[in-house]
Amino acid sequence: MDKYVYRFAEGGRGMAELLGGKGAGLAEMTRMGLDVPPGFTVTTEACRVFLETGAEPASLQDQVSRAWKQFEDEVRERFDAHRPVLVAVRSGAKRSMPGMMDTVLNVGLNDQSVERLAVWSGDERFAWESYARFVRSFALTVLGMDEEPFEAVFQEYRDAAGDWRDSLTTEHLRSLSRVYRNIVEEESGRPFPQDPRQQLDLAIRAVFGSWDGERARVYRKREHIPDDLGTAVNVCLMVFGNLGTDSGTGVAFTRDPATGAPGVYGDYLRHAVGEDIVAGVRNAVPLQELERLDPKSFAELCENLHGLENHYSDMCDIEFTIERGKLWMLQTRVGQRSAAAAFRIAADLVDEGHVTREEAVLRVTGDRLAQLLFPRFDDQALPARLATGVAASPGAAVGRVVFDAHTAASRDARGETVILVRPQTRPEDLPGMLAAAGILTSQGGKTSHAAVVARGLGRPCVCGAEQLAVDVDHKRFTTADGTVVHDGEYISIDGTSGHVYAGEVPLIASPLVRHFQGTPDDGSGTEDASVPAVDRILGWADDCRRLGVLANADTVADAEQARRFGAAGIGLCRTEHMFLGERRPLVEALILADTPTGRREALDALLPLQRADFTGILRAMDGLPVTVRLIDPPLHEFLPDLTELSVKVALADGHDPNWVHDAHLLEAVRRMHEQNPMLGLRGVRLGLTVPGLFAMQVRALAEAAAALRADGFDPRPEIMVPLVGDVRELRIVRLEVEQVLAEVAAVTGVTVPCPIGTMIELPRAALTAGQIAEAADFFSFGTNDLTQTTWGFSRDDVEASFFPAYLDRAVFQTSPFQTIDPVVGQLVRTAAVAGREAKPDLGLGVCGEHGGDPESIRYFDEAGLDYVSCSPYRVLAARLEAGRATLLGKTP
Amino acid sequence: MDKYVYRFAEGGRGMAELLGGKGAGLAEMTRMGLDVPPGFTVTTEACRVFLETGAEPASLQDQVSRAWKQFEDEVRERFDAHRPVLVAVRSGAKRSMPGMMDTVLNVGLNDQSVERLAVWSGDERFAWESYARFVRSFALTVLGMDEEPFEAVFQEYRDAAGDWRDSLTTEHLRSLSRVYRNIVEEESGRPFPQDPRQQLDLAIRAVFGSWDGERARVYRKREHIPDDLGTAVNVCLMVFGNLGTDSGTGVAFTRDPATGAPGVYGDYLRHAVGEDIVAGVRNAVPLQELERLDPKSFAELCENLHGLENHYSDMCDIEFTIERGKLWMLQTRVGQRSAAAAFRIAADLVDEGHVTREEAVLRVTGDRLAQLLFPRFDDQALPARLATGVAASPGAAVGRVVFDAHTAASRDARGETVILVRPQTRPEDLPGMLAAAGILTSQGGKTSHAAVVARGLGRPCVCGAEQLAVDVDHKRFTTADGTVVHDGEYISIDGTSGHVYAGEVPLIASPLVRHFQGTPDDGSGTEDASVPAVDRILGWADDCRRLGVLANADTVADAEQARRFGAAGIGLCRTEHMFLGERRPLVEALILADTPTGRREALDALLPLQRADFTGILRAMDGLPVTVRLIDPPLHEFLPDLTELSVKVALADGHDPNWVHDAHLLEAVRRMHEQNPMLGLRGVRLGLTVPGLFAMQVRALAEAAAALRADGFDPRPEIMVPLVGDVRELRIVRLEVEQVLAEVAAVTGVTVPCPIGTMIELPRAALTAGQIAEAADFFSFGTNDLTQTTWGFSRDDVEASFFPAYLDRAVFQTSPFQTIDPVVGQLVRTAAVAGREAKPDLGLGVCGEHGGDPESIRYFDEAGLDYVSCSPYRVLAARLEAGRATLLGKTP
Repeated sequence: MDKYVYRFAEGGRGMAELLGGKGAGLAEMTRMGLDVPPGFTVTTEACRVFLETGAEPASLQDQVSRAWKQFEDEVRERFDAHRPVLVAVRSGAKRSMPGMMDTVLNVGLNDQSVERLAVWSGDERFAWESYARFVRSFALTVLGMDEEPFEAVFQEYRDAAGDWRDSLTTEHLRSLSRVYRNIVEEESGRPFPQDPRQQLDLAIRAVFGSWDGERARVYRKREHIPDDLGTAVNVCLMVFGNLGTDSGTGVAFTRDPATGAPGVYGDYLRHAVGEDIVAGVRNAVPLQELERLDPKSFAELCENLHGLENHYSDMCDIEFTIERGKLWMLQTRVGQRSAAAAFRIAADLVDEGHVTREEAVLRVTGDRLAQLLFPRFDDQALPARLATGVAASPGAAVGRVVFDAHTAASRDARGETVILVRPQTRPEDLPGMLAAAGILTSQGGKTSHAAVVARGLGRPCVCGAEQLAVDVDHKRFTTADGTVVHDGEYISIDGTSGHVYAGEVPLIASPLVRHFQGTPDDGSGTEDASVPAVDRILGWADDCRRLGVLANADTVADAEQARRFGAAGIGLCRTEHMFLGERRPLVEALILADTPTGRREALDALLPLQRADFTGILRAMDGLPVTVRLIDPPLHEFLPDLTELSVKVALADGHDPNWVHDAHLLEAVRRMHEQNPMLGLRGVRLGLTVPGLFAMQVRALAEAAAALRADGFDPRPEIMVPLVGDVRELRIVRLEVEQVLAEVAAVTGVTVPCPIGTMIELPRAALTAGQIAEAADFFSFGTNDLTQTTWGFSRDDVEASFFPAYLDRAVFQTSPFQTIDPVVGQLVRTAAVAGREAKPDLGLGVCGEHGGDPESIRYFDEAGLDYVSCSPYRVLAARLEAGRATLLGKTP
Repeated sequence: MDKYVYRFAEGGRGMAELLGGKGAGLAEMTRMGLDVPPGFTVTTEACRVFLETGAEPASLQDQVSRAWKQFEDEVRERFDAHRPVLVAVRSGAKRSMPGMMDTVLNVGLNDQSVERLAVWSGDERFAWESYARFVRSFALTVLGMDEEPFEAVFQEYRDAAGDWRDSLTTEHLRSLSRVYRNIVEEESGRPFPQDPRQQLDLAIRAVFGSWDGERARVYRKREHIPDDLGTAVNVCLMVFGNLGTDSGTGVAFTRDPATGAPGVYGDYLRHAVGEDIVAGVRNAVPLQELERLDPKSFAELCENLHGLENHYSDMCDIEFTIERGKLWMLQTRVGQRSAAAAFRIAADLVDEGHVTREEAVLRVTGDRLAQLLFPRFDDQALPARLATGVAASPGAAVGRVVFDAHTAASRDARGETVILVRPQTRPEDLPGMLAAAGILTSQGGKTSHAAVVARGLGRPCVCGAEQLAVDVDHKRFTTADGTVVHDGEYISIDGTSGHVYAGEVPLIASPLVRHFQGTPDDGSGTEDASVPAVDRILGWADDCRRLGVLANADTVADAEQARRFGAAGIGLCRTEHMFLGERRPLVEALILADTPTGRREALDALLPLQRADFTGILRAMDGLPVTVRLIDPPLHEFLPDLTELSVKVALADGHDPNWVHDAHLLEAVRRMHEQNPMLGLRGVRLGLTVPGLFAMQVRALAEAAAALRADGFDPRPEIMVPLVGDVRELRIVRLEVEQVLAEVAAVTGVTVPCPIGTMIELPRAALTAGQIAEAADFFSFGTNDLTQTTWGFSRDDVEASFFPAYLDRAVFQTSPFQTIDPVVGQLVRTAAVAGREAKPDLGLGVCGEHGGDPESIRYFDEAGLDYVSCSPYRVLAARLEAGRATLLGKTP
């Protein structure tokens, strides 16, 4: 018989899969001997059975009964006999999904135990208020009833009693709880359940069910959490932080989660329950205040935190409650942190001897690193502040103000950048937080919902900006000095400093970027301490990694940037932009040439310009490979747009001197127009149909390289042929390229080795890679086009049109343009194997967008490729992820 | 040591691979005891060595020497001692390439043997004329010299002698041959080779080299003959048809190659060599004349023809020469014939007991059958004839007159339909013949170059229309009554009757099509005898075949046509055309609807119309499957063209009442515009994003089927989902479809089974077919789209732009849209295997263009598919090819 219920003492940190993160943490703390209230965990396996079959496993009842019995015994042993046995029933999945599932508190309260609670607590009003709140929340959460009748009654009582619910008397509350129970009976046709065991069973089932709730599903999709994991349910003795001023509740981190700075950190709220602090309903005090309020509990807490960090070898966050001077640990987990903190903590833990360098590399990710590259506000250009709040999630964001999640989502869908402004956020605001470039709240601290979620999403967030009066109904907020900001106006928020500005503040490079650019630091922010940490961890990743990291760069500036970021060369130098700008007339002449002579003249004019382009890039990457892709897009893309030109010609005055030219041009544009240019005359097909085009590019590159070599440089050009589908195409181009290279070598007397390879970006190329390898020195997988042709959709056309529906209906877990599609990945792998079989020393790389995507990098590492090539700004993350890939590949 | 030289007596009909078709035929006739001049064949293998290495195999010299010695002995034995030993050196590839390679006659003539030839022939002038012509042709063909100096000298002599070369005296010719030899020596720096062995070696090498000549390569590409086969070289004693009126030369067929009618057929030319007749320089007389001229030779010839047909069990064509009353057989092969003849002969041979039904099926092809479907001229609408010539290649053609091959090719490239008109054609006219819709010549018979090539190409051809005076220089021809037709004017030619008409004559269905349409025959043409033959052979093919043949049909008319042609159902019923015409406003309303209600109203209005469409088609195909593909193209394709509408709106007067509508429409067209609609929001993606669209179509189909079933019909609807790339897409749609089917069944009380399948038309679908099969009842391979995505090109965009270059540079042997690309084929095969593994009873078919292509059908048969589906007009050919595929699959 499967074991579905574990007492806390039976579990441990390694069992998160089965017990959820919270359950595993409670068990681990119990085993460490920390003071955890008694309790037990119902496993995720039981939840999965429930989700699949619609019913709990047959043996669950018995197992819960046995655990309940033991639990009651333990409570009787450890607590005074009068204490009512009430429990909190909380969800807890393997991966944290804060606030996304249901929690039921005070399970066990009924007409009898409420009286016991009143006696034990010595506070009758507290007991009846707890009971009333329990009935109402149980009805909503567990019984799935409507809030409306409860709220109506409550309003009546409140109106009768005055403005504030605190003014409700014990009698009011006793009466209210009875009315609430009557509502339940009327609406559901059954009396409110009085049996604690029945309450418990219903609560467990409700938590199970909340796994499939709307909020939870949206969150999982965003976080790429599989839908079939299920949640565990933790049943834990209620301890009360709201029994007076010697009680309270708090959240603590073993280090600063924003900066990674050492030292205990957190919030404490006296005379409150945990939900108050998370919801940001009331503002907490810094944890250090607790030392003054309750030195004993504070000392014990610090000791616990220290022990936990040593035990977990990582920064932990915990929840605790102090019940009449007694500290209870309610949760621990490896704490969420900002990107800057993640790097600083990982490096510090190495220095402190807690983890190895390899472990430190595995503690951070490329996605986190990418967050440190976001630009910041230019301090020189800052306007007066509107307000300052808590710096809850770092980064700068500029956007138009919106006041609700729905508007945020719809404006984002229209392409507008928005900042979501709320008094506080709740779980149902998640879609709006996803849509927003940044989040601003007037209530709540660093551990409020807004702060936690924003850090998880990587969105800049300022919270608890109390100077602001946020008026959601009228879609405006007002600052301390009376400035009013309306819906749709621009503001700028800095999640690193907590500052809020009016209008659009200009952005500058982040400290990390400035570091790699060698531009001086402005010496301002605290988080610059992360820069050396990132640098060190990148070095450790470099020591581990097998994959090379190259960059996609088309200009000297990009090449220099890439080199500073540590790229080992250029894996993709596109040549099409070299046909733009002032060269457009030459390209137009080339395209419109109707004689071989005209075409040759146009190419001759382009040659020195291309040569100059290549000279600059080869010099910038001196000693490193520069992989030049011969021109890829259809030539008509260099001509004016068909529709625009048609309208222009149609509207033109016949006397307009340009009219003849335009009409002539329109004729060519029409002739060359393609219904599906992505599937048209481009890539290698141009090389086989436009005489001299590829040869001109190759000549320009070869001449540039020869001249540099003659000047003592070490140019390393490579030539890459795009869009090959069959080896015969490559053979023809290769012959032509080799001939030009030989001619240039003969004329200049300088031979610069120049490997000739091909993109593998069509299914046909991947499927015939063994043949193609015979004519290629290297493959570079163009995973963008390969994804487009394998799936038969074009990124530009479909990402907006049907990807949202596909993500929503779970056809995709993530866009296949972000993380490599498994079938496309399989094509890459198959082609790599076939290519290497045909030619063991074949070079293998990736130059699609996926070259910078962490998950995809791990895939390419496993597939045995030599390198990834990505945009310069992704080089740092790719270096890190390449190191992680090697380490992850080693751990079984 | 490899044997590179075979005496005729050593070879045989089975050795065409090694000896070429001509060599194998000469050997076979020699073994049959027919009178063939002595000789030997140098193998294709020797040619291949030459082509690969640039030199003959080392042992070839010795082998030729030995063969030559034996040859001389045989000549001495069989002929009188005075006969000079001169040989013809002729090419002869495995597959006939008429006139495409070099021939050298009279090899062995030199200053001595010319004297012997004079004595032996008793005709000094003949001997010296032969020598002069030999020197000149040897210089051109073998030594690769320019014709110009020879022609200049010849003109001088002719001018000196009068107008005609016949008037040159023996002395003139003796002198001319000496001057020719001097030219050779001056131009080449070496004396004209006098050694017969040296002449022979050079001639053999020249023939080898001509395999790679321009003409030969163009021809091979058109005929899909591999470039690496090489040609054999036949060395054969010269016999002379030009020694007087008791000599002559001819070509004969064992049956009429145009109609297939039994009886000897051919042309004879007295006092002439074979080249004269083939070139059509002089008009031959019908073979029957020979009976009067030389009854002995005629009787022997008829006996030989009869023996050859029995021996080969097929219609043969032969070449012969009569030298002073003695018949010599110079060539035999299975004869080329018109499509009509091919079917008639194959059926007749079965009746005559020569071949089995299966062999008869293998004797014809779907391509030939397709030629019998071409429309003919409407006899009721014929204008007066311009002329009547030889009905050389059947079929009707209408086009504009052109007078040279180059113009034909360039006008064809511009999309014009042209008729090539020439006095006679030569091999260099091939590109023009390829480009022309029909060919008309004023000279030459049914065996002239024009006739032979046109039949091979399937181009209608009238030749030898002697009433026409063709003036190429002035680009016009004149008829007997003085009518002048100029370049660019329309004419109509009927290659079945030989008639030529002015202007554009209207076309009507062919006899075969009328037969299957059940429309009465007009009782005119001879070739209608082929109709019953086709019908019988199709029946035999049906008896053999394993593959089902279905049709692609979207309308009732197409469905009825397909059924008459023997289609076993509809494999692809596209639904998009049902959105056109008068329904466009409804579709526009659907697309522009911005509320769910508006969309629902538009769909509700479309429902009854679609239902009526389906009712008609299901009724037409009663009892047979109708596979309905849910709507596939992007919806914006139902809106006006972006460019046209932009211009319209830009030019519109603001007072135009339509302006507001157009501007509104333009906004939608812009919003929905896709850069690459083929890779856009279409197929199953529409189903997942446009609520109710697929459901409306399914409901219409289900309601139509239910109503028909209730009326006693037997509707067999199937539903096909297009463009699926992942099983999850199909699962979602399948659920929706099943729900609608169930609803209709519940409402109507009639359940009509309706399998639900999917197109496999994306690489990703093919690569995940095992998964997709789990949600599909059948696969239909959409090989058009699969080719487009696997190769990454769109048919519409690239066939004109770069396919010509690709065919020219041998990247393709044939367009992958015509015959299935091997890699695409491999995807089909892989997907079929994976699909069947997952679901053994999975239906498998093809509904791309390839479903009607003979070569592809063989592939699909081997791949184990259940059926092919093609356009109605290709059903007949597909039935035949499916039968052939089975038979070819059986023969190892």
